Amino acid sequence: MNRPSHGGNLRWAAAIAGCSPSDILDFSASINPLGPPKSAIAALRDRVRVLRAYPDPEYCQLRQALGKFHQLPPDWVMPGNGAAELITWAGRELASLDTTYLVVPAFGDYWRALEANNACVRACPIALEEHGEERNPSDELPVPLPPSGTANEIGLLLNNPHNPTGKLWSRAIVEPYLERFSLVVVDEAFMDFLPPHQQQSLIPQIREWKNLVVVRSLTKFYSIPGLRLGYAIAHPERLQRWGRWRDPWSVNTFADLVGVAVTRDTEFQQQTWDWLACARSQLKTGIEQIPGLYCHEGAANFLLVRSKCPSSQVQKILLERHRILIRDCLSFPELGDGYFRVAVRSREENQRLLAGLTDVAKTIDSPL
Amino acid sequence: MNRPSHGGNLRWAAAIAGCSPSDILDFSASINPLGPPKSAIAALRDRVRVLRAYPDPEYCQLRQALGKFHQLPPDWVMPGNGAAELITWAGRELASLDTTYLVVPAFGDYWRALEANNACVRACPIALEEHGEERNPSDELPVPLPPSGTANEIGLLLNNPHNPTGKLWSRAIVEPYLERFSLVVVDEAFMDFLPPHQQQSLIPQIREWKNLVVVRSLTKFYSIPGLRLGYAIAHPERLQRWGRWRDPWSVNTFADLVGVAVTRDTEFQQQTWDWLACARSQLKTGIEQIPGLYCHEGAANFLLVRSKCPSSQVQKILLERHRILIRDCLSFPELGDGYFRVAVRSREENQRLLAGLTDVAKTIDSPL
Repeated sequence: MNRPSHGGNLRWAAAIAGCSPSDILDFSASINPLGPPKSAIAALRDRVRVLRAYPDPEYCQLRQALGKFHQLPPDWVMPGNGAAELITWAGRELASLDTTYLVVPAFGDYWRALEANNACVRACPIALEEHGEERNPSDELPVPLPPSGTANEIGLLLNNPHNPTGKLWSRAIVEPYLERFSLVVVDEAFMDFLPPHQQQSLIPQIREWKNLVVVRSLTKFYSIPGLRLGYAIAHPERLQRWGRWRDPWSVNTFADLVGVAVTRDTEFQQQTWDWLACARSQLKTGIEQIPGLYCHEGAANFLLVRSKCPSSQVQKILLERHRILIRDCLSFPELGDGYFRVAVRSREENQRLLAGLTDVAKTIDSPL
Repeated sequence: MNRPSHGGNLRWAAAIAGCSPSDILDFSASINPLGPPKSAIAALRDRVRVLRAYPDPEYCQLRQALGKFHQLPPDWVMPGNGAAELITWAGRELASLDTTYLVVPAFGDYWRALEANNACVRACPIALEEHGEERNPSDELPVPLPPSGTANEIGLLLNNPHNPTGKLWSRAIVEPYLERFSLVVVDEAFMDFLPPHQQQSLIPQIREWKNLVVVRSLTKFYSIPGLRLGYAIAHPERLQRWGRWRDPWSVNTFADLVGVAVTRDTEFQQQTWDWLACARSQLKTGIEQIPGLYCHEGAANFLLVRSKCPSSQVQKILLERHRILIRDCLSFPELGDGYFRVAVRSREENQRLLAGLTDVAKTIDSPL
């Protein structure tokens, strides 16, 4: 079986660990361990009969619920079959421009979506080292501003908070790019993991910028990646154009129902914010105590770790000896085998990971 | 609310009927009234936890199950988020050719998928009249064969059995087109409604023709349009290319599970074939007894009806007085207001439709 290029591939991991996929403790996919929320489960209970009807092609209720959540009219919202589907259409839109600047390392599916549409891509690398020392990404974006008055049509594709570094750029840092780029697509798939007062979403600015698209996911925060649900926020004209590129029933009825239910679930939201700040901080401290590991600051529900030992080796031992799956970074060419990424999970599970990493260091008899 | 361009829009219908969408008796969407099968319901029971994991991006089990169903290796199968998603990629492929011949009247989403990719389309109309009299479509395809040795790259997009006429073309009639067209896409969304010995699927021929794509749906036969599940059968190289055009998790986990379960459900399949032949024949006979209506032969689970009275008027009265929704044909420009389409439902429901149509004739005091 080929090494997967995305996290969360439990079938692959189970084959290595010699167990069933459900026995794997998955730190590779950045999914909220508290979910799915009861509100989601209730929305689906005994609802198989609703599958007999087509989804509403206008997704009125879902667009209204999401619009209300962001204090926007429904026509500024387009639900998608996961944020990943919307990245495909963003890729098509960006490919129509002369160049797209892409902040790298980047989620592999950005490359797929851009290359599928023959986009011309300029990679803008985040510096993670200074004088040979690992350091957190800069508060500035690693993206040059195109000269004012340039005739070129230039797009920007950015992930904020950034995967896999966890870096959060402030709204004030990103906004100047809206003045110079023809199209700015910000994937905010992990933004909802920040408590409201810390979020740096550009959604509140959406009405001011016709050249802005914000992509959001509901599957990570609400732990429903199997259900597929995301949405784009952008000017209605742009969303109508995207709507003609795809078929009318892209979001399944269950995802439609769950989306309406979970956006109202303020209890689950608060519970997640309460858990994350504390659990992430404890996990980071634990990782830093293991010799050889450097743990990046992270604003989201995952942490990027630099290791001296090849992370593919760490991953293999963790799987074989502990049935724990971490995310290697081999699919990010800028990172390679010196990094791995771990999701933040419950306190007990995080302790299992730390014990596992400590055991790996003993097994290979060297710092990680 | 705008008139919907597809069937099954219960929200629109309920607004006219002044009732809840669940009170509408829906003859507009061609969905098997016997489903969802128990095997599908069992596959979903208490499975909300599986949503916490991403779908397998290779969809190994599903591709294996579908491959086994058609006696093909799994790499000849690509599951999709409904057949409609696969039509989008077929549209992109066809658009790369010089011209695509499209048999019309055609499912509106074919036009959408072709136009979304700026395809050059040549419509090939089915004749439904002869000497001013309504007649069933010819056993020949209304598609000219391109001259042998032509330098042009020409594609064909065909629906068999054909929606909305219900016409089934034989394999022997379609096969010669494979020799002359660069790409032939056959949407067999309703083929599974025919008992095996009557089916004219091109899937058994797929290995002989690298330029053939067959699209199938699982949502109509198994009554799960809300779940979204279809698949394409084609040469593995083509499917790998399509796979790079879309994100890796296009099919949700519930659809994945249900797809594996229902393809094995031979009891439900037999039950459907037994019901349909008898129910369709009774419904057709009943329609023909209502003055003014001509009912086409149909091989699938719906019937196309020619009416003297504008079908939008028939539709409105049926909704307002009987909460019955039929499919007007206004979205098929070649048909317009002189036709409507009805699904075949249970014997009792079909009787309600016939009683409703009889009542409409009384209400307007004229033949339909």
